[in-house]
Amino acid sequence: MKKIRQKLKDLFQTHRIGQANNIIMKNFADRLNEAIKAKGSAICVGLDPRMNQIPEHITEAAAKEHKDPFVAAAAAIIEFNKGIIDAVHELVPCVKPQVAFYEIFGAPGMQAYKETIDYAQSKDLIVIADCKRNDIGSTAKAYADAYLGMTDVYGESRAAFDADALTVTPYLGYDGIKPFIENCKEFGKGIFVLVKTSNPSSGDLQDLELKEGGQMFEIMGQLVDSWGANDIGESGYNFVGAVVGATYPEQAKKLREIMPNAIFLVPGYGAQGGGAEDVKPCFKEDGTGAIVNSSRGITFAYEKDENYGPKEYAEAARAAVEAMKKDLSKI
Amino acid sequence: MKKIRQKLKDLFQTHRIGQANNIIMKNFADRLNEAIKAKGSAICVGLDPRMNQIPEHITEAAAKEHKDPFVAAAAAIIEFNKGIIDAVHELVPCVKPQVAFYEIFGAPGMQAYKETIDYAQSKDLIVIADCKRNDIGSTAKAYADAYLGMTDVYGESRAAFDADALTVTPYLGYDGIKPFIENCKEFGKGIFVLVKTSNPSSGDLQDLELKEGGQMFEIMGQLVDSWGANDIGESGYNFVGAVVGATYPEQAKKLREIMPNAIFLVPGYGAQGGGAEDVKPCFKEDGTGAIVNSSRGITFAYEKDENYGPKEYAEAARAAVEAMKKDLSKI
Repeated sequence: MKKIRQKLKDLFQTHRIGQANNIIMKNFADRLNEAIKAKGSAICVGLDPRMNQIPEHITEAAAKEHKDPFVAAAAAIIEFNKGIIDAVHELVPCVKPQVAFYEIFGAPGMQAYKETIDYAQSKDLIVIADCKRNDIGSTAKAYADAYLGMTDVYGESRAAFDADALTVTPYLGYDGIKPFIENCKEFGKGIFVLVKTSNPSSGDLQDLELKEGGQMFEIMGQLVDSWGANDIGESGYNFVGAVVGATYPEQAKKLREIMPNAIFLVPGYGAQGGGAEDVKPCFKEDGTGAIVNSSRGITFAYEKDENYGPKEYAEAARAAVEAMKKDLSKI
Repeated sequence: MKKIRQKLKDLFQTHRIGQANNIIMKNFADRLNEAIKAKGSAICVGLDPRMNQIPEHITEAAAKEHKDPFVAAAAAIIEFNKGIIDAVHELVPCVKPQVAFYEIFGAPGMQAYKETIDYAQSKDLIVIADCKRNDIGSTAKAYADAYLGMTDVYGESRAAFDADALTVTPYLGYDGIKPFIENCKEFGKGIFVLVKTSNPSSGDLQDLELKEGGQMFEIMGQLVDSWGANDIGESGYNFVGAVVGATYPEQAKKLREIMPNAIFLVPGYGAQGGGAEDVKPCFKEDGTGAIVNSSRGITFAYEKDENYGPKEYAEAARAAVEAMKKDLSKI
């Protein structure tokens, strides 16, 4: 009995057990804000492994051990990611693995995705699964269980990917969001809904002017604000966050006002052209409210920094994080 | 040399080789339309395996063979899908496996997804991967390679999932679509872009009235029409299709006019409440232009048809397809 209680306590402390067991989960926004404070940085490291940029000593070692090229690629990715995670975990609160770069290696790639999530969490990092999943009803529920919950099968309850948060796409409306929100509540997880993305053609849909006034991305902001309204944590933020690109600072400024309780996940810094001044409008005046992501600029920093060779890719990543931290501290 | 030529010819006939080798791929729309004609039906069978609805004799046999519950679930899914595919492949041109029901079982589930695609193609079915993937630039390219192309790794070129078509989400604009279109051209594949979905809250975004006139889904229709304009095949259709729900016949009618060259993938028939009359506006007067999907209504027909027990689930599925064929023939 004592053992069970200790186990439940451990589970509670690591936020891995749901309301189903009558334990109220900690709000994801509070978890994230605490981690940002503890690490003294609002940086998210994107783990988008591209095989042709992973140092050769890693890819070649993996190929020696595994004959199947997808299995070898998966092994190389895990090895590479572990190096990055070891180098940056003391400096940043979270990482964001982009699933497309794992799916491209089939089932072995998805195994590498899971192992990356597990390893990052073992180093006390919050993991945002960047999957931009979306569907309706029972299908959305299946995605929510896969990434932010448990799969019930053969009388067991087991997590398929068990990330801390997931990016989702809003085109299907509330039906496509509700199952994710329910899992967030039950398992203490979060979502980040695409609102204003960082790419050049994001305006095709997102900037359309509406008859009732305002633009599409503003309506999306209002919807996201309403979807999270019931679940505001102690930090003043809720677990329904928003993706707002660093490349559109004016729109970000508007969205910061529309969604006062949403944490912004901000892509587009660095490789996509956004700088510290561009991400500033995503933060509130007290310095809270956003997480700025950088992927290639950190993980493959060794390619551009002549102080480091391929074998020092992790050290180069750490230095890039420190430089980014310094850059962001200006604002 | 003769051998190589024969091999190239075989590859060409099975549409598995790209323009990179100076062979022009057959347009996906032509392939799909030929298959519809050959099978005499415009039905797509959705393969959304839910473990609690798969007959027990299958799930139990899988559990006896595999200790790991995810591996056992994956084995049960493949066995179940093979039964359905064997029963329906002579009657329908295509199947549509919904990836969420595979991702929920982690990497083993994704292996089952691949094996389902391969098995369906071995029975001459066209496979629409229902993944609603979306991202920008190089990330969208990774998804496109994963589902509609080849992964280059360790000097090899190998397909991760190799479906014939993929559903995609448009919220990111053209940047998020272009990499898929390029792969469609190179590998003879297709995409279906979400335009007007079948769910109750699809109007949250899709029905918003625009300042310039019209509603959001109409603009989406215009965009989809323009994205496919350069790639119209001999059948008069292009490989950029649209998802248009059976539950909104009036909007479907408008969209049929806006996108004269797009094949509609129509969910919402049967379990979601759409009937033959509701899907009628998705077709042109000559009876071409749409594929109507049914998932649960076919694959789990045995649960509702007292003529069949769980062991005859495949026969029940075949009977359900025949009933649907008859129902659709009215229009």
